[in-house]
Amino acid sequence: MRQRLLEATLQCLVEHGWSGTSTTLVSQRAGVSRGAQLHHFPTKADLVVAAVEHIATVRREELAQAAAALPRDQRRTREVLELLGEHFTADVFAAALELWVAARTDPQLLAAVEPLERVTGRETHRLTVEMLDVDESRPGARELVQATLDLIRGLGLASTISDDQARRARVLDRWAEVLDHELPRREHHRQERGTR
Amino acid sequence: MRQRLLEATLQCLVEHGWSGTSTTLVSQRAGVSRGAQLHHFPTKADLVVAAVEHIATVRREELAQAAAALPRDQRRTREVLELLGEHFTADVFAAALELWVAARTDPQLLAAVEPLERVTGRETHRLTVEMLDVDESRPGARELVQATLDLIRGLGLASTISDDQARRARVLDRWAEVLDHELPRREHHRQERGTR
Repeated sequence: MRQRLLEATLQCLVEHGWSGTSTTLVSQRAGVSRGAQLHHFPTKADLVVAAVEHIATVRREELAQAAAALPRDQRRTREVLELLGEHFTADVFAAALELWVAARTDPQLLAAVEPLERVTGRETHRLTVEMLDVDESRPGARELVQATLDLIRGLGLASTISDDQARRARVLDRWAEVLDHELPRREHHRQERGTR
Repeated sequence: MRQRLLEATLQCLVEHGWSGTSTTLVSQRAGVSRGAQLHHFPTKADLVVAAVEHIATVRREELAQAAAALPRDQRRTREVLELLGEHFTADVFAAALELWVAARTDPQLLAAVEPLERVTGRETHRLTVEMLDVDESRPGARELVQATLDLIRGLGLASTISDDQARRARVLDRWAEVLDHELPRREHHRQERGTR
């Protein structure tokens, strides 16, 4: 039941945003009585903190699953960018975006969001390095991976206003070319895929 | 007085976010009576639409002024990126971010935000091409300018959660190197600045 309430909070954030999400709406959506909700989460703050953790966990799990589903021998740059682009336009990204922006002007929420954001960011970075076979010991490699994730985050934000998939595809095509020129790869990547 | 109300709306969005901004707060902040506010903006929707236009105008004006203040002979890649990065972390960016995210789940607001966002996006793109002396007739040039603006938008979003200026500076340093390698420039740029 706890899990159902957290999932309902995520869906409410996706559909109604932070300002449209109330504990009443969450209990309705979860099909859980007000009493049962108060048993699991005595205050709204309790529910919010647990939902922030839930959303961070779903983000990490979804990305890890997508990464595992992409076979190692098919991990070409453009496919990895596609996977990341899909992750940063998925429902859970929209829910996280609502939390980020609400946290900007809500210190209590920021205290819950910020540490988990750091963990999620590190994990996303690590998975991206692995998927792209990046040699992070080389100067500039780390920053180029960070830039890639900032770019993908910016595309995700733009997609909430106008979902221009053709534009996004062209930007990612071009970015894949740039990474193939500029990103130092680990030895086995260069051998297997002939990327310089 | 109209202008004062619009400026107060922008400041309320920056400080309290979309969910914390009310017409009452705006009139208090502007030092304008409720009656005078209703004279200029009979409904909340009237104020919101005018505020969306005001924020888009301020964004375009601030960027154009910053671009004009950067002398042509100092328009090196890294300095242009610094200028864009500052623009996308300024107060007016935070106000625009509040509108974007609220518009995601509010069709009426989206109808006001989306067309102005397109105009602002085109103008930002045009100014960036001009500042970087990009030869947009060359394949891939347009997409790399778009990628640059998506990156800067992603950095702006990240800065609302943790203002890690050292990280942002390193990412922009690396991005400037990439652009100097990959971005086709107009002839006079190559002659004046020796960029390939």
